Amino acid sequence: MSGKADYTSLLKKTELFCELPDDLLSKFITHITKKSVAKGNILFLEGELASYCYIVTKGWFKLFNETLDGTEAVVDVLTVGNIFGESLALNSKYNFGVQAVEDGEILILQNSVLQKQVKENVEFASVVLSFLDSGRKKQIKEMEHMAVQNAPQRIGCFLLRLCPLGNESDVVINLPYDKSLIASRLGMKAETFSRALNKLRAETGILIDGSRVEIANISQLSDFSCSACSSYYPCEDLKENKGAG
Amino acid sequence: MSGKADYTSLLKKTELFCELPDDLLSKFITHITKKSVAKGNILFLEGELASYCYIVTKGWFKLFNETLDGTEAVVDVLTVGNIFGESLALNSKYNFGVQAVEDGEILILQNSVLQKQVKENVEFASVVLSFLDSGRKKQIKEMEHMAVQNAPQRIGCFLLRLCPLGNESDVVINLPYDKSLIASRLGMKAETFSRALNKLRAETGILIDGSRVEIANISQLSDFSCSACSSYYPCEDLKENKGAG
Repeated sequence: MSGKADYTSLLKKTELFCELPDDLLSKFITHITKKSVAKGNILFLEGELASYCYIVTKGWFKLFNETLDGTEAVVDVLTVGNIFGESLALNSKYNFGVQAVEDGEILILQNSVLQKQVKENVEFASVVLSFLDSGRKKQIKEMEHMAVQNAPQRIGCFLLRLCPLGNESDVVINLPYDKSLIASRLGMKAETFSRALNKLRAETGILIDGSRVEIANISQLSDFSCSACSSYYPCEDLKENKGAG
Repeated sequence: MSGKADYTSLLKKTELFCELPDDLLSKFITHITKKSVAKGNILFLEGELASYCYIVTKGWFKLFNETLDGTEAVVDVLTVGNIFGESLALNSKYNFGVQAVEDGEILILQNSVLQKQVKENVEFASVVLSFLDSGRKKQIKEMEHMAVQNAPQRIGCFLLRLCPLGNESDVVINLPYDKSLIASRLGMKAETFSRALNKLRAETGILIDGSRVEIANISQLSDFSCSACSSYYPCEDLKENKGAG
């Protein structure tokens, strides 16, 4: 690390900052600090004052809520280029908690800096608006999946989204985190996930060995998974996605 | 209807416009038209150019996508005070279709007017930002529900959110639309919904006759439903909710 200078290239890989001109970026960089986070560390909990936002530069981070009966609800799992905890309102509170899934690294920025720039800088305000807008599109897609995809199709969709674009056959990917977290992320109990994975294997011929997944035929997997979706693989957001991971 | 003057009071009941000062409201009102929509009418489909946004002043409207295999995925059902189809980016496309669930009424506004005001008016830009922000919070809560609530709890949560605040016992409500649409809205198949409703009846003592629901004891219903949620009834957003329906 050669200090602040490296932050520019890191921010250029994020969904919120990737399109900003350097002079605007520098206004954020002076306030940014970098931090390593060990696996299992909790960055904040739901209900705490949302003073900081976090930009992932390494690893995976789990966004979760704890229900009143003590169950953990995983609402998202984010990685390099993603931002979380950002708040544009004064004195607002986090509406989820965040834990490191593995050893990782983050950039930390005060939300007050974001708020100040949104207020003072029309260009940044418009970037934030499209950021929120595209987040909303992802959420609507996610609602659609939850509504009509069955469990094997949801897992198939999850795997497709990990595949490098452009390869049609003999694709090998690694699961980014363990199967129990994937199950939670997809809103499934462990048993449901395990049954659904077996069904997906039988229907699409994919091979799974530990965290290694071998997909002989992408279109066989997408025919199966995307039939219960309104768009076919590769989805629009994957094609558009330059900055985010 | 006495024309444009009535639009002010209608807009004051909406989630996006309720807090705007009259002089700013009037900039929108000159561009607004009102329209009746017959049950079953489709306002737009997914993928069409997002030229207009719609503000519901009467009735219920279903937001949906059609999957490649022809299934309808209901992503939301909106009513008085809600807005849909709004877009802040030029030449963007609707990412869902909208159909009237019953005879209704809407106000129609060009998205170009929204876009112009966001650009020119810092006050309105900040209102739009909090609007998008609070939409995001609802989505996170919805993801949480989908992840951990079982089907009877999801129905219980849906019913609780229809109850007038402040009443603890002998509450009577009417289902806002038919049960098959409620099932779709909650991402359930008809059979799942029917079984889950029976379980909910048995667990919480609620009575259902056609569209009439009698809840003898609100806390019995909320104990059952909110145990699989991170917040207890009445939820924050219900308490905050002044404008929206």
